[in-house]
Amino acid sequence: MALTKNIKLLIEYDGTNYCGWQRQNNGESIQQKIEEAIENVTGVFSKVIGSSRTDAGVHAKGFVCNFFTENSIPPNNFKRALNAFLPEDIVVVESKEVDKEFHSRYNSIGKRYVYTVVNGSNRPAIERNYVYYFNKTLDIERMRKASKYFLGTHDFSAFKKQGSSVKTSVRTIKELTIDKDGKYIRFSITGDGFLYNMVRIIVGTLLDVGVSKFNPEDIEKIITSKNRANAGKSVPACGLILEEVFY
Amino acid sequence: MALTKNIKLLIEYDGTNYCGWQRQNNGESIQQKIEEAIENVTGVFSKVIGSSRTDAGVHAKGFVCNFFTENSIPPNNFKRALNAFLPEDIVVVESKEVDKEFHSRYNSIGKRYVYTVVNGSNRPAIERNYVYYFNKTLDIERMRKASKYFLGTHDFSAFKKQGSSVKTSVRTIKELTIDKDGKYIRFSITGDGFLYNMVRIIVGTLLDVGVSKFNPEDIEKIITSKNRANAGKSVPACGLILEEVFY
Repeated sequence: MALTKNIKLLIEYDGTNYCGWQRQNNGESIQQKIEEAIENVTGVFSKVIGSSRTDAGVHAKGFVCNFFTENSIPPNNFKRALNAFLPEDIVVVESKEVDKEFHSRYNSIGKRYVYTVVNGSNRPAIERNYVYYFNKTLDIERMRKASKYFLGTHDFSAFKKQGSSVKTSVRTIKELTIDKDGKYIRFSITGDGFLYNMVRIIVGTLLDVGVSKFNPEDIEKIITSKNRANAGKSVPACGLILEEVFY
Repeated sequence: MALTKNIKLLIEYDGTNYCGWQRQNNGESIQQKIEEAIENVTGVFSKVIGSSRTDAGVHAKGFVCNFFTENSIPPNNFKRALNAFLPEDIVVVESKEVDKEFHSRYNSIGKRYVYTVVNGSNRPAIERNYVYYFNKTLDIERMRKASKYFLGTHDFSAFKKQGSSVKTSVRTIKELTIDKDGKYIRFSITGDGFLYNMVRIIVGTLLDVGVSKFNPEDIEKIITSKNRANAGKSVPACGLILEEVFY
């Protein structure tokens, strides 16, 4: 009798040419490419469970997913075998066997995202698919002050895409840092989980603070209003990278 | 009578989807895109003079070119006007009027290129078009020792693509540094000029030193042999960026 193994994959991908992680009818997805590669290696279709549903155009350096297989290939070798069938914009960084109870999404206790803004007088040609170009002058200190109001546990209804339904909009943000490195401004956000478009709306709202459309202390009012219309716009997907999923 | 102006452009481009700087019959070139944009702005075709012929897939952050026009648009405004007609992978960073005698190629007294290698156990998905993935362990100190032999004025016939004809293969390399930043290894090379594929063959030869195929002191012998067959292979175009052209 074949033994079923639970295989955990750590993957990096460039989301530019995909409709997101999850299978869709309107385009190719990362999930589909991983499932096709697994079927090419094992000969059997295995559904892959992803740690989150990243949007179209969003990238990942540390996406986690898992699948069950009865195939006898040594678990660590799935990395090399799957990479042989994956396109160049998706890479398996690590493969290993985990406990049968492990579930990429349910067991996740947190995630870290990084959003990169290029702030200057010229839109970038190189790396344009991995950053958001913003040409107005940004006050970093104002944005840093504003970022403090996001920390902790709040109902983030004002920071989720309208129409998205979840049991609760309460989330905890553990860390939010803003680093400037030349023309690059990086927003690093760690939380126990994120609502649909939450990171992108938080960054959009911080940019509004950076150009003095909002005051730093307005963030508190926007959060307590629970009204999406009060927050800033959602910045483009291309600047967002899922850096790490915590278990 | 219209006054002819000589306009110098500083441009950044992602060379991934182009056959190189120069117009070719087998694909789209950067030169063609710039000339088309100028014609869209001025209504007149102007031939653009480039500072060098970068190869297919090579990128530039500080490419310089110039063209003559009788158009009355303020020279500094060419930047914004041309960018309105250029694709997203080509950006004019600066436009200004220069002396009528200025010639992008003839007046150049040097160039700086940076070649980026990703060295580690995983090929990159993100940024794959801007780096060369090399999976064997590299000894940085050996490569640094070897790099000293390139400095100064030499006949670099061993480091030019066979079949390329130039008046002289003598060039001067002023600086060659190798920096390691995590998995990234950056080769920065400054010289008065470079032969066809010269930077890529130098980097390929240094990688051979890094994996102990060559000794650092072999570089001297390879240079004096003037024989292309003795040097390493030419590394892929995608890792190469023209950083700066000096006048």
